[in-house]
Amino acid sequence: MQTPLPPKGTRDFYPEEMSFREHIFSSWEKTCQRYGFEKFDAPIFEHLDLYTKKSGEEIEKQLYTFEDKSNRKLSLRPEMTPSLARMVAAKGPALKKPVRWYSIPRLFRYEKMQKGRLREFFQLNVDILGVKEVTADAELIAVAIDTLRDLGLDNNDFSVHVSSRNLLEELFLQLSIPKESIKPLFLLLDKQQKLPKDVFKKELEIFLKDQRLATKVFDILNAQSFDEIVAINPSSPSVKDLQNLFTVMDHYGLADYVTFDIGIVRGLAYYTGIVFELMDKNRDLRAIAGGGRYDRLVSLYGGEDTPAAGFATGDVVLAELLKAKGIVPDQPSRSDIFIATFNRENYNQVVSLANALRQRGYSCEFPLRPIPIGKQMKLASAARSKVVIFTGGQEEKEDNIKIKDMRSGEEFLVSKDELYTKLADRLSNS
Amino acid sequence: MQTPLPPKGTRDFYPEEMSFREHIFSSWEKTCQRYGFEKFDAPIFEHLDLYTKKSGEEIEKQLYTFEDKSNRKLSLRPEMTPSLARMVAAKGPALKKPVRWYSIPRLFRYEKMQKGRLREFFQLNVDILGVKEVTADAELIAVAIDTLRDLGLDNNDFSVHVSSRNLLEELFLQLSIPKESIKPLFLLLDKQQKLPKDVFKKELEIFLKDQRLATKVFDILNAQSFDEIVAINPSSPSVKDLQNLFTVMDHYGLADYVTFDIGIVRGLAYYTGIVFELMDKNRDLRAIAGGGRYDRLVSLYGGEDTPAAGFATGDVVLAELLKAKGIVPDQPSRSDIFIATFNRENYNQVVSLANALRQRGYSCEFPLRPIPIGKQMKLASAARSKVVIFTGGQEEKEDNIKIKDMRSGEEFLVSKDELYTKLADRLSNS
Repeated sequence: MQTPLPPKGTRDFYPEEMSFREHIFSSWEKTCQRYGFEKFDAPIFEHLDLYTKKSGEEIEKQLYTFEDKSNRKLSLRPEMTPSLARMVAAKGPALKKPVRWYSIPRLFRYEKMQKGRLREFFQLNVDILGVKEVTADAELIAVAIDTLRDLGLDNNDFSVHVSSRNLLEELFLQLSIPKESIKPLFLLLDKQQKLPKDVFKKELEIFLKDQRLATKVFDILNAQSFDEIVAINPSSPSVKDLQNLFTVMDHYGLADYVTFDIGIVRGLAYYTGIVFELMDKNRDLRAIAGGGRYDRLVSLYGGEDTPAAGFATGDVVLAELLKAKGIVPDQPSRSDIFIATFNRENYNQVVSLANALRQRGYSCEFPLRPIPIGKQMKLASAARSKVVIFTGGQEEKEDNIKIKDMRSGEEFLVSKDELYTKLADRLSNS
Repeated sequence: MQTPLPPKGTRDFYPEEMSFREHIFSSWEKTCQRYGFEKFDAPIFEHLDLYTKKSGEEIEKQLYTFEDKSNRKLSLRPEMTPSLARMVAAKGPALKKPVRWYSIPRLFRYEKMQKGRLREFFQLNVDILGVKEVTADAELIAVAIDTLRDLGLDNNDFSVHVSSRNLLEELFLQLSIPKESIKPLFLLLDKQQKLPKDVFKKELEIFLKDQRLATKVFDILNAQSFDEIVAINPSSPSVKDLQNLFTVMDHYGLADYVTFDIGIVRGLAYYTGIVFELMDKNRDLRAIAGGGRYDRLVSLYGGEDTPAAGFATGDVVLAELLKAKGIVPDQPSRSDIFIATFNRENYNQVVSLANALRQRGYSCEFPLRPIPIGKQMKLASAARSKVVIFTGGQEEKEDNIKIKDMRSGEEFLVSKDELYTKLADRLSNS
C-alpha cells in the first residue's frame, strides 16, 4: 500500500512545524492575556444555517457541509464570529458586558489553493462586545499590533490601515448614490486592491452607470490624506470617531503604526463602522489581520442589541511573513537532560535517576533500549538536549557523575551530592 | 429568531469552562514535556479509507463522513493513531527513532449520547515508535499516571490495570482454541465488564461451542493474581515481559499504581502486546485512559515495520472525576490589574498607564466607556482582578495613587514613583 497523503489544503504538523505553530499561538495567548481578554471556544461544526443566516446561501460554496446521521445540516466552521455571536445571544443579559474574549479557532474554507491560503487554517479572534464607543476599536487595534510586535515585527514591517464604513456611506449619500446601492458598492470597492486602477475605474462606471459619478467615487477612494476627507465633511460623527481613534492610538504609543486608508472596506457585508487591516509594508502578502465593528450580528441571532467589534489574524500569512523576515525561532529541546549509560545492565538505575529529575520538574529522557554510546549521543542531539548525564561509567566508583554540556561541548565531573545544584546552575541560564 | 443551539453532542466553552479545559490541557502538556515528548498534529479530517483500512467498513457508522466538492470521501477524525501512523509511514527511515510524540486532538464520534460520552471531545495521545521492548510500555504507563497525579489525583483515586494480549493468546492456544478464533474472542472478552458474569459466561459458551472450554477460559479470566498465571506458564515471553514491566514500574516509584488484570483486552482489534487501562477506584466511570502496543499499524499504511505503543486519555471522563473529587481550580483572573477612574475626562491618561503596565508584562484592563465608580468596581470583580488602581482622584494632586487589593479588601496609597515596585510586591506572591 502506498502511504496515504493528508487531504488537499490541509497540513501535517511534524514536531518542527508544530513548534513554530506553538510559537505563534503562545505569542497570541500572552498578548491577549496582557490586554485582559479571556479565552473561549465553540464546536468545530455548527448548524449550516448559522452561516447562511449571516452571509446568504452563496457562502455554501466555500463551506465543508455535511449531514449527520439524523439529517441535520452541519458545516465545519469557516469563521468564529457567528459562533461567538450565537453564544453571546444565548446568554442574553446574564453575560456581563463588556465581553472581552479571544479564541484560536481551527477553521475550514473550501477555496482555490493559492499563496497564503489553505483549506484548513488557524486564526486568532479577539472581540469586545457591549461597547459602542470607538475606544473598543482602538483597544482591538492595539492588541492586533502587539501580537505582531511580540513576534518581533515592528512598524518597518507592517502598518494598520483604518477606515470607516459609515464615513464612506456618508460620502456616497452626499453624492446621491441610492442607499440600496451602497452595500453592493462596498463589495465592489473591496476588489480595488486586486485590480489595476483603470480596470477598477471601468467597473465602477459600469456599476454606477454614470461616468462623472464614478470619477467622484474614484477620487474619494484615492484621497491621499485624512485631512482631505475631513475637509469634505468636518462635522460628521464618523470623522469625529476617526479623530478620537487616532488620538487614543497615540496614548497607546502606537500612532506610528496607524494610517488612514479610505480604500479599506473589508469584503464581509456585516461590518457597520470602523474597519481596519494590518498589511506588510511591501504589500506582497495578503492582509495579515483585519477587523471592524459589527453592531448588528448578535441581534441577527435573536440576542439583544449588542454593539460589537473584533478582528482576526490567520496563521498562514503570518508564518510567511516571519519566515521572510528570518525570525523563526529554533525548535526547542525535546528533553533538557539526556541520561546516557555505559552499562547495559543498569536500566533500573537510569529510570530512578530520570524519575528523580522529572519529579524536580526537569524534562528528561534516556534510551529505552540498549544501544552503543555513540548512538546514544546521536539520540541526545536529535532530542536537542542541553546536557547529557553519563551513568554506569568509571566515575561512579568515586561517587562522581560525568556531565556534558551539549551547547558548549564542555565535559565535567560533579560529585553525586551536588548533581542537582550543578544542573540547576547549568539549566537556569538557558 | 430563536437563538440557535450548538449541534447535539458538542459543547460551547464559555471562559469558565474554557479555563477548566485549559487547566487539564496544560497539565497534559507539562507532563509530556517533562517526560521528553514533543507535540505534533494532523488535519482534523482525513481520507475515509484511513479509518476503514484499520477498522473495517463497520467503523463508518461511528464517523462523521462527508464528500468535498471534488467528491473525495473524507471523515472527521475519530481517533489520532491512524494519522500518527500515516505520518510516521510517510517519513520512513528519515524519521529518527524512537519517535516520542504527543498530541491533544479534537475528535469526533457519532455515538449514542451517554454519561462520559460526547460526539466532540478531546484526548491526550502519547506514543513511542521504534522500541519493541516493554520498557516503552512502562514509560507510557508512567506518563499516563503522572498526568493524573499532576491534576491532584493519586492511588486512592485510580489504578492502572495491565494485561497482555500475547499472554492471553498463548493461554488460549494452549487450550487448543484455533488461532483464527482468537481475534473475535478478544472482541467478546472486551464486553466482559459490561455484562453480568453469568450472561458473559453464556456468551462464551455460545461462541466456543464447548461448555468445558468456556469454563476454562472463564477461570483464566477470573484469575485473582499474576502468580496464578505465572504458574500456568512460567517461561513464556509474555510473562517475562509483564515481570519486567512490574519491576521497572517500581523504579519509576509507581508500583503502587499498577495491578495485573487479565480481564483487560481493549476492544480495538489492532493491539498486539501489553494493554492497559486506567480506572477510577470506585469503578463508576468509564476508563480514564487506555492503551497498548500496536506493532503492525505503520506497515499497514505502507511504512516500514515499526514497533509502537501508545495510550489515549479523554477530557470528558477526566473532568467528571475531577469534579467528583472537588479539585476544579478557581477561574483565573481575566486582568490582574483594573484601572478605575474618578474623572471621565482622563481616558487618555488611563490608556497611557495601561500601556505602561502591559509593556511591563502585567495583564491589565480599564473601562472602555464612562461609567460610575460603583459599576467600575463591579467590572473589576467580574474580571477577577487582584488589584484596582484609582486614577483621577484627589490623591493625584499630591502625586499619590490609591490602590485596592481586591483579595484582602485593603486600600492604601503609594507615591507615583514607587507604583511599579509596590505592584510587583503585591502581585508576585499570588
